[in-house]
Amino acid sequence: MGRRLVLTSFGESHGKSIGAVLDGCPAGLELDEKDIQKMLDQRRPGQSSICTQRKEKDIVEIISGVFQRHTTGAPITMIIQNNDQKSRDYDSLRTKLRPGHSDYTAAEKYRGYNDYRGGGRFSGRLTATHVMGGAIARKLLKTALNIRTNSYTTQIGKTCMKKEFNEKIAGMIYKNDARCPDAKTAKTMKSDIINARKNGDSLGGIIESVTLNMPVGLGEPIFGSLESDLSSAMFSIPSVKGVEFGSGFEGAKKYGSENNDLYVVKRNKIVTSTNNSGGILGGISNGMPIVMRVAFKPASSIAKKQDTIDYKTKKRTTLRVKGRHDPCVVPRAPPVVDSLVSLVLADHALISGKIGPVL
Amino acid sequence: MGRRLVLTSFGESHGKSIGAVLDGCPAGLELDEKDIQKMLDQRRPGQSSICTQRKEKDIVEIISGVFQRHTTGAPITMIIQNNDQKSRDYDSLRTKLRPGHSDYTAAEKYRGYNDYRGGGRFSGRLTATHVMGGAIARKLLKTALNIRTNSYTTQIGKTCMKKEFNEKIAGMIYKNDARCPDAKTAKTMKSDIINARKNGDSLGGIIESVTLNMPVGLGEPIFGSLESDLSSAMFSIPSVKGVEFGSGFEGAKKYGSENNDLYVVKRNKIVTSTNNSGGILGGISNGMPIVMRVAFKPASSIAKKQDTIDYKTKKRTTLRVKGRHDPCVVPRAPPVVDSLVSLVLADHALISGKIGPVL
Amino acid sequence: MGRRLVLTSFGESHGKSIGAVLDGCPAGLELDEKDIQKMLDQRRPGQSSICTQRKEKDIVEIISGVFQRHTTGAPITMIIQNNDQKSRDYDSLRTKLRPGHSDYTAAEKYRGYNDYRGGGRFSGRLTATHVMGGAIARKLLKTALNIRTNSYTTQIGKTCMKKEFNEKIAGMIYKNDARCPDAKTAKTMKSDIINARKNGDSLGGIIESVTLNMPVGLGEPIFGSLESDLSSAMFSIPSVKGVEFGSGFEGAKKYGSENNDLYVVKRNKIVTSTNNSGGILGGISNGMPIVMRVAFKPASSIAKKQDTIDYKTKKRTTLRVKGRHDPCVVPRAPPVVDSLVSLVLADHALISGKIGPVL
Amino acid sequence: MGRRLVLTSFGESHGKSIGAVLDGCPAGLELDEKDIQKMLDQRRPGQSSICTQRKEKDIVEIISGVFQRHTTGAPITMIIQNNDQKSRDYDSLRTKLRPGHSDYTAAEKYRGYNDYRGGGRFSGRLTATHVMGGAIARKLLKTALNIRTNSYTTQIGKTCMKKEFNEKIAGMIYKNDARCPDAKTAKTMKSDIINARKNGDSLGGIIESVTLNMPVGLGEPIFGSLESDLSSAMFSIPSVKGVEFGSGFEGAKKYGSENNDLYVVKRNKIVTSTNNSGGILGGISNGMPIVMRVAFKPASSIAKKQDTIDYKTKKRTTLRVKGRHDPCVVPRAPPVVDSLVSLVLADHALISGKIGPVL
Repeated sequence: MGRRLVLTSFGESHGKSIGAVLDGCPAGLELDEKDIQKMLDQRRPGQSSICTQRKEKDIVEIISGVFQRHTTGAPITMIIQNNDQKSRDYDSLRTKLRPGHSDYTAAEKYRGYNDYRGGGRFSGRLTATHVMGGAIARKLLKTALNIRTNSYTTQIGKTCMKKEFNEKIAGMIYKNDARCPDAKTAKTMKSDIINARKNGDSLGGIIESVTLNMPVGLGEPIFGSLESDLSSAMFSIPSVKGVEFGSGFEGAKKYGSENNDLYVVKRNKIVTSTNNSGGILGGISNGMPIVMRVAFKPASSIAKKQDTIDYKTKKRTTLRVKGRHDPCVVPRAPPVVDSLVSLVLADHALISGKIGPVL
Repeated sequence: MGRRLVLTSFGESHGKSIGAVLDGCPAGLELDEKDIQKMLDQRRPGQSSICTQRKEKDIVEIISGVFQRHTTGAPITMIIQNNDQKSRDYDSLRTKLRPGHSDYTAAEKYRGYNDYRGGGRFSGRLTATHVMGGAIARKLLKTALNIRTNSYTTQIGKTCMKKEFNEKIAGMIYKNDARCPDAKTAKTMKSDIINARKNGDSLGGIIESVTLNMPVGLGEPIFGSLESDLSSAMFSIPSVKGVEFGSGFEGAKKYGSENNDLYVVKRNKIVTSTNNSGGILGGISNGMPIVMRVAFKPASSIAKKQDTIDYKTKKRTTLRVKGRHDPCVVPRAPPVVDSLVSLVLADHALISGKIGPVL
Repeated sequence: MGRRLVLTSFGESHGKSIGAVLDGCPAGLELDEKDIQKMLDQRRPGQSSICTQRKEKDIVEIISGVFQRHTTGAPITMIIQNNDQKSRDYDSLRTKLRPGHSDYTAAEKYRGYNDYRGGGRFSGRLTATHVMGGAIARKLLKTALNIRTNSYTTQIGKTCMKKEFNEKIAGMIYKNDARCPDAKTAKTMKSDIINARKNGDSLGGIIESVTLNMPVGLGEPIFGSLESDLSSAMFSIPSVKGVEFGSGFEGAKKYGSENNDLYVVKRNKIVTSTNNSGGILGGISNGMPIVMRVAFKPASSIAKKQDTIDYKTKKRTTLRVKGRHDPCVVPRAPPVVDSLVSLVLADHALISGKIGPVL
Repeated sequence: MGRRLVLTSFGESHGKSIGAVLDGCPAGLELDEKDIQKMLDQRRPGQSSICTQRKEKDIVEIISGVFQRHTTGAPITMIIQNNDQKSRDYDSLRTKLRPGHSDYTAAEKYRGYNDYRGGGRFSGRLTATHVMGGAIARKLLKTALNIRTNSYTTQIGKTCMKKEFNEKIAGMIYKNDARCPDAKTAKTMKSDIINARKNGDSLGGIIESVTLNMPVGLGEPIFGSLESDLSSAMFSIPSVKGVEFGSGFEGAKKYGSENNDLYVVKRNKIVTSTNNSGGILGGISNGMPIVMRVAFKPASSIAKKQDTIDYKTKKRTTLRVKGRHDPCVVPRAPPVVDSLVSLVLADHALISGKIGPVL
């Protein structure tokens, strides 16, 4: 993923370890494990009552590309050991296709050679590798251009945050388990998730991402548009099924005269009075905040009994998905979205020369 | 765009010509200009009362890669001459920033060197180059794997098609100007667009795309997911602001037990009883129809007077966008969506070996 | 070819036209057809008594990416019409495999769908597309960084230039048909070629390329080394069979103490007293001239009778290659080598930020 | 490196560890650490009296992409811990530029942030990461297509092997320290190296690589030629300064009638009676053995006193390179060349569909 700043991710849910190589990071960025660990901790399983109880400390180790606490310009490799695999949980359902999961597509594509334990390569656990690279990209954007990305839960099931986001409430995001900057909505979201789990069920939701202090001119027309690259990155997160920018699907219902953002001058800078474009025009950033909304389907692993098929016998059967699962992955997703947004924007900052090869 | 099947697009709205090079098409596909012209005619301006009256016949010429009416395996180059440019229409507004357009971002990015006539490189006219490549990809998919893509208008402004799509009504899409397979809804859509234009305004809408007869196993986990590549392609279309697959944003409101698609066996094939996944699980096709919805913002060029800024003087001013514009680009978009879907799927068919280097 | 500055070439020897798209050229470079035509004229067939008499004026037309005599940042497309094809010359030998040519490999790879006329996609004629892109890259390097590339004939058959190259004799390269900056050697080379042709035979040779005024720091360690990219570009020229930098194959015979270039300070700049490295250390330019030597095999098309096989019948047969061929391609190669060197160096200048996205 | 089979290498000479990620390997290849270890052992330092005495066991660990002793189709990550770094050896010469090394270019490019210990990212030690990936590619080619690559020393300093290579003597390569299949020449080579070291000096040489049982049709015309990709791979090895195929630089001296390989039929297969093309015509394999020669400069690190410059003060100084160095890297290079040839050929086998996504 990426053209100048290239992230390679590796590992499986129940393998020895997972990791990432970030190639193309400029030399001279101050960096140590703590910078990455902080974001990993926000994604980590087992951190609250509403996420999976798999116990992974997710301690990251940097094994290349950093010397004397600064990046060297060489590929940065990071690794996390897997500790708390319970692969036995998966043996019973090896051939029972779990609805909503990739069991069937993976088995067909790799003719059975894929590592099926815990979803293997397809597991949400791999989003930790996005965070490894993304934490560096985020620090790079902050250091070099003071760009700040904020992603947060704006909807869980049918519960929506009504308040508009502003930077003042950014500090509230990680104050609650739902990762919603509005405390009251967060409370409802949490109880919704707890109820769903009690019923052996799961919930989906929406993450909104707002990036502030964008320079004008990141992105390319047509094939290298910011929207293309951001959406492509979002759909690399398991469970994501929709992405929109600015007024998005709602904008499709409006008249041009309602949806067009009018230009005005503020503090001698050209800006728009509204932001229905989500900060992107012609595939290129216009200096307004980049606003993106990402839809997550409800988690596929549910304790409720479901009808399904046995892959080998093609006979009908039923299953209850055991193991330790998130009843809703959305609260763990904000650092993942932040990471991928940062990777894409840092890539474009490098492409456009806003960030050079040495800081 | 693309990894194995690479489309390079070139040209500007008011330049000499526009064109595309498609590299990686297997040798041995029967092909001549007619195959491409047919889809170009469906996108062509001036074809109905509800689109721009710019008169372009858009006659395509193949200048390389085809020999004795078959592809040779070499890059296929296609060109359309631009005929009906009225660049003078754009002189008056050279420095007046048109709301919703890329005038500002392009001028900043290229420091004034960009070709501003008719939107230049950013013009919707460039989607004709998508169609050039896409027509070939579509024929390739049909010939080699009998994959069939159908894209159609499902919403204009607030008017939605209620009927569910099925292959029987596919033949209806191009029977009306709105490109909606439901004739009655199409009529309302058309009058909505005519009314908007009368008011000097514009409308947006939604294109739905359904691809039938998909093989299982196209796509990759994580960074090369089908959703990543399809959405990336969609956001290369000017005006697209949202993309969703299957139940998409609606699915985010559901419980897992509602949204999971249950496996059943039909005619000795494993299928799902519903298709909330839109045919993609773990980034890989599961054999069900690929269902995608694409949101278009209302066209930015409107005749109504709008407040704006003069780019040079940074003074407030007003403008009415002259020139010949689409009051709604959606009815011209189905062949563009079909094209990009086909390019992405053909690319993955080549990657996965479902299509070889020679037919 | 290229990462930031991407050249796509298209066309066939006997097709309608050949052309190139150069994507990634910074905006703001002054450019018109003359800049490209000049280098094309140096490569053009029919320009002297020692090259093929195929009459192609090779008039280039820019059809996109240039506006008001400057590059816009959009893809630059250039086209040359083919005029003087004599495809009939090739009919007789359609199935007789020409020794040294790609007839057999192309027929096998594309199972007969390839355009076989005049070598089709494999023809040396396609090097004109390298020159189209390379002429722009060369002007970009000259304008932005004053980098100057000089390629010239240093060997034809067994005749070698003994003189060392220096910038003073650069002006002599195009003063003779052999493209050798030493007039006396050039004369022998020319008569060698004329004699070979008289005997129905052909000759090979060596092009040396010296690039002056290099900045330090272009290139990358390991996979993106300057040597990797330059050699890869050279081997895209038909007939090239060897590439070496600095002391190259001769250096393999030396001791380290002889081959190491010692550092000295000249005019307050760190340089080396010798240049056995050819200006590249660790894959990165060290500021010394880049010196590369490129070996061309003798032209495969010869009038002499040769034994061969009929591809269809697998029977033994003989052939004399008719048509109008170069008895030695080397004298036409200097602009091609200049072009490819320029494309690679401009690509790396963009990657390293020495040239920005707008001039 | 690579298009379908992508090798990412990471690590530094004196960092914690070095490693590689191989992405794109088909699922279903039987694989464990032993397959890789065997080739690493052939490259390992300290294995004979004529190479560096740095003691690295180079024990490889596979940490992803293999499950139940077979590849899964997911990225394969391999790691070697660094053990025997003696970074202190490098402190004294931190600012004294070592002739022939990348100290100067690296320091300039990364403005001092690069890891300078033991050459850091530029060290020949990184070729172990080529071998990690290459060992897998080699096994893949052998298993799927029975392609066999043999690389061996053919020249050290001025001592050349006169015998022609054939598969019968392939088994002799690793029977001596020089890695030359001719025992007698090997003996001279070894004593030459020992003498050079005694004199505080070093030697270069040539590796020849012969790949047998090639299918016809690997490679592409123009930019994706086999020669382009092979040479690009070779120049990613530190010290390589020249690459030629078939008759190479010698061929440039010949007449076409001498150099053309004539087609004949043997055992009902079309072959050539000579192999001056080195098995590649038009960038595509013709089924004959791929023959490539790679020139290595003499090792830059020598114990002899050399004049140089201090990078900081720009003052003249002298140095003797301490540390444990190879007096000649060539005998350790055959597995590296084998590896890179295998990676390139496996990549093209995947591109051309000769190897599918699952074995």
